[in-house]
Amino acid sequence: MNWLVVFSNLQDGQSGSPIYTRIVEAVRAAIESGLLAAGDKLPTNRELSTFLKVDRSTVARAYLELSRLGLIDSQVGRGTFVSVAGARSGSTWEYSRNNFDAAAGGNKQNAPAGSGPASGSVDWNSRYSRYVDGLTGLINRLPQYGDGDYISFAGGIPAQDFYPSEEFKKIVRSVLDSDRGDRMFDYSPFNGEPELRQSVIDHLDRKGMAVRPDELLILSGSQQGIDLVANMLVDPGDCVIVEEPTYFWAISNFKARQARLIGCSHDEEGISLSEVESALRRHAPKFLYVMPNNQNPTGRTMTLARRKALVELCARYNTPILEDDYSGDLSYDGEPLPTLHSLSPKKDLVIYQGTFSKALCPGVRLGWLVGPVAVMEKLSFAKRTSDLATNSMAQVILNEFLTRGLYQEHLARVNAVYGRRRDAMVASLEQEFKNFPGVTFIKPSGGLFLWLTLPVGLSNRDLLNFARHERVVFSPGDLCFTEATGLNHLRLCFIQNDEDTTRSGISRLARAYKKYLDYVNASSAGLAGESPRASNHVLI
Amino acid sequence: MNWLVVFSNLQDGQSGSPIYTRIVEAVRAAIESGLLAAGDKLPTNRELSTFLKVDRSTVARAYLELSRLGLIDSQVGRGTFVSVAGARSGSTWEYSRNNFDAAAGGNKQNAPAGSGPASGSVDWNSRYSRYVDGLTGLINRLPQYGDGDYISFAGGIPAQDFYPSEEFKKIVRSVLDSDRGDRMFDYSPFNGEPELRQSVIDHLDRKGMAVRPDELLILSGSQQGIDLVANMLVDPGDCVIVEEPTYFWAISNFKARQARLIGCSHDEEGISLSEVESALRRHAPKFLYVMPNNQNPTGRTMTLARRKALVELCARYNTPILEDDYSGDLSYDGEPLPTLHSLSPKKDLVIYQGTFSKALCPGVRLGWLVGPVAVMEKLSFAKRTSDLATNSMAQVILNEFLTRGLYQEHLARVNAVYGRRRDAMVASLEQEFKNFPGVTFIKPSGGLFLWLTLPVGLSNRDLLNFARHERVVFSPGDLCFTEATGLNHLRLCFIQNDEDTTRSGISRLARAYKKYLDYVNASSAGLAGESPRASNHVLI
Repeated sequence: MNWLVVFSNLQDGQSGSPIYTRIVEAVRAAIESGLLAAGDKLPTNRELSTFLKVDRSTVARAYLELSRLGLIDSQVGRGTFVSVAGARSGSTWEYSRNNFDAAAGGNKQNAPAGSGPASGSVDWNSRYSRYVDGLTGLINRLPQYGDGDYISFAGGIPAQDFYPSEEFKKIVRSVLDSDRGDRMFDYSPFNGEPELRQSVIDHLDRKGMAVRPDELLILSGSQQGIDLVANMLVDPGDCVIVEEPTYFWAISNFKARQARLIGCSHDEEGISLSEVESALRRHAPKFLYVMPNNQNPTGRTMTLARRKALVELCARYNTPILEDDYSGDLSYDGEPLPTLHSLSPKKDLVIYQGTFSKALCPGVRLGWLVGPVAVMEKLSFAKRTSDLATNSMAQVILNEFLTRGLYQEHLARVNAVYGRRRDAMVASLEQEFKNFPGVTFIKPSGGLFLWLTLPVGLSNRDLLNFARHERVVFSPGDLCFTEATGLNHLRLCFIQNDEDTTRSGISRLARAYKKYLDYVNASSAGLAGESPRASNHVLI
Repeated sequence: MNWLVVFSNLQDGQSGSPIYTRIVEAVRAAIESGLLAAGDKLPTNRELSTFLKVDRSTVARAYLELSRLGLIDSQVGRGTFVSVAGARSGSTWEYSRNNFDAAAGGNKQNAPAGSGPASGSVDWNSRYSRYVDGLTGLINRLPQYGDGDYISFAGGIPAQDFYPSEEFKKIVRSVLDSDRGDRMFDYSPFNGEPELRQSVIDHLDRKGMAVRPDELLILSGSQQGIDLVANMLVDPGDCVIVEEPTYFWAISNFKARQARLIGCSHDEEGISLSEVESALRRHAPKFLYVMPNNQNPTGRTMTLARRKALVELCARYNTPILEDDYSGDLSYDGEPLPTLHSLSPKKDLVIYQGTFSKALCPGVRLGWLVGPVAVMEKLSFAKRTSDLATNSMAQVILNEFLTRGLYQEHLARVNAVYGRRRDAMVASLEQEFKNFPGVTFIKPSGGLFLWLTLPVGLSNRDLLNFARHERVVFSPGDLCFTEATGLNHLRLCFIQNDEDTTRSGISRLARAYKKYLDYVNASSAGLAGESPRASNHVLI
């Protein structure tokens, strides 16, 4: 591996972000793409600073950051080496690039004719495993936190206090006493329990979506919708358009299927139409994955005008849309806007994906897809090859919850509470960060997430280390980008903590940010002390 | 489409199976592989009989069979056409071969510059959708049966009478009353509820398998194990070794990922080692998928000697094994044999897949994988991209069932009952079919399935039509083959019906078989009357 390749396009010295950040991201991208593998040697500080014509302190800072990310190890007297997964000690499995590249599979061909076990290791490698190596390496090495007394804005689950546990328990008891009790333990039909299917159709009807039974498929959670659609549509090398940034586990799913992701940025109204059109024109993508409501991670909601224009555009190119409405029912400033599915000028343009997980509780693992009949037949088949059928018990319980009208009641309650929590976070951020220039955020009108942006060049990883010391944590925003970039973003989940806790958390975050800025300033003046160290657990 | 290609390798007149069967299978394979598409015209009877140098009645019989399978339509005065899915009327989606073959996607490129929606249809096509078209076409057009008064040996689920529903209900009530009640509604950790993980480890320990926690991943049913391993290991074009015949939904999953399946046949001891070795040598397969206990569909259990030899062989070639133990706890003639996982000479050779679904009830949708740590890390990642986490409620309930010792009690009860049912079916088959030469079956020592073989040239589809009239049904065995073949096999599920019902069912089956034979004989003498017609619902 010649490291010149990794750093060659940093030489021109252009671009907005500081050179140290760009070195970090170049190494990270090279690891993720497989250009760099565990054990590969990086250039010395002197070599790289000469090559890039930058100061040695810049390279030192980049290597420090990479080391803190767990991506490299410096060994005194030997040099600096890539240290991602695959080189883990104690593992019975060793990654070998030769196995990966040789289509026929490396050491398999050399099996001895004799009877004893061959030397060499069992070959569990594939393109997928290589991709996952890179990514789990990154995830496992994120700055982490334990179960201590943190205020957490990380993760993306609803507030546990509002799980409708008592209602669920009542329902379970009454179902157990009824003749439907036994149904909970039998196979569900592969497309879902008939009663729940009808309840979901009624639910969608209230959202203005007219859905026929054969257009609906019940899923084991809404992530399964992403998985099935990608399974059906993505062949290796196919292009998929996504918002940039977008949902981490969608990126992971698509990339693991070797899709090429075309990221399109946002403006205030939603995904950029000109970028989408350019992608449609140039890449003939298989589909567009988009979250019009409370986009994850930005929290942005697409305007009605943009929605209409987007479906018109995709219809013109006959390119399907997967509309992920993971949190559409969580709406704090009025009714949700019409879905892309209901706005589409063509009946067969949009697959709509929904769930009750974000409004109720995630443990039930139920979601659904709605789409054109012929496509749903194929997705039903994919569903069966994936997990045969969805858990029956959860379906029976959720159906009762819906038919008793409890979901609408629950929604009214949590929307009021979560709206106030959103307001508390927004007010608190405006207050606490008003003296920090360049820190901006998007005010969400629904959902779970608020997107906070630091000045370019600052790192959410560094801030997270300082934040841990202030007992507050968040999700690093760069994980939501399709390429190694976006280190200056934070995703804050605002629905998990009550208003007082939210205010304390934001105040702690501002304190951490102040200390981080002081450290950065001291560091560039050569006066830096110790920065805090990382420790154990990260939520995405 | 030149039909000569489809039939060209039937010309040599060799091979065991009768020519009419081979015509049927050639057309079926051509449709599945995409060589023939909806609307393609087939040769006339005269053309094909001349081309193949066979009697016109042979071609007529093949076309009759194909028509009964729903694969072709004869239109008076126009000819005979392929009629698989994709040409469905009323669908908003139209399959176009050009879209499939053109990498950049057919009509997408021709979007008008104007603002109105383009004509043409939205492009939901992919290699996957094409594969599914072929397969759902086959499935949907199988001879079918309704919900009437049938004795069913079809499907593969345990007997509903023995679902431990009362115990489950007791457990649910007590969990609801305890402080673990709320846990049922929260996200489970992605690798499973800690208590259930420990219970599964204890369960495996009783089977002689020493499993560390980081070697275990809890799944949403055992089908998900097949899906995740295939997701991780299979790139399009990769080879996978399977038993021939094997589990229908494994074939479907692997083929949908564009794997090339290398089928290895069985002898009395299990999968043929010489065929496996030949496949290992020639194809460098990604992995071997195998069911050592009560193989689906043959019901065969691999001997201890064969197990040892198989793991030695795969270890020598460093080729991983996915061991699917979907029914290992259902064992009627003594304790189950050691698993491949526990016999392996290399620690990282085998991923073991288990479930309680077949012994308990399928609705809970829980299964697990056990394998080398480094591989499990990647599978955990795949699990998260697939459905984030497994249903919590089912895990809490099942864990209680296990820790209270109820599973062992349940197993003793159902193994006694199912063993008697197996004996009843075996005795009944020996009695009822003793006067039919060439009908053979394999006596299973556990599991759910018995594999019945008719003389080559007979068709399970035809028999199923006669059987429906006698009010008995079964699963067509050919669906379990990787290629279009095996029409003369039947899979009978023997655990669902009590002994008396089983005896009646087999007696009905024998009656249907007699009528089918009479029909075949009359047909070859040119005297055939009407054969029964197909109608609605098939279980695989």
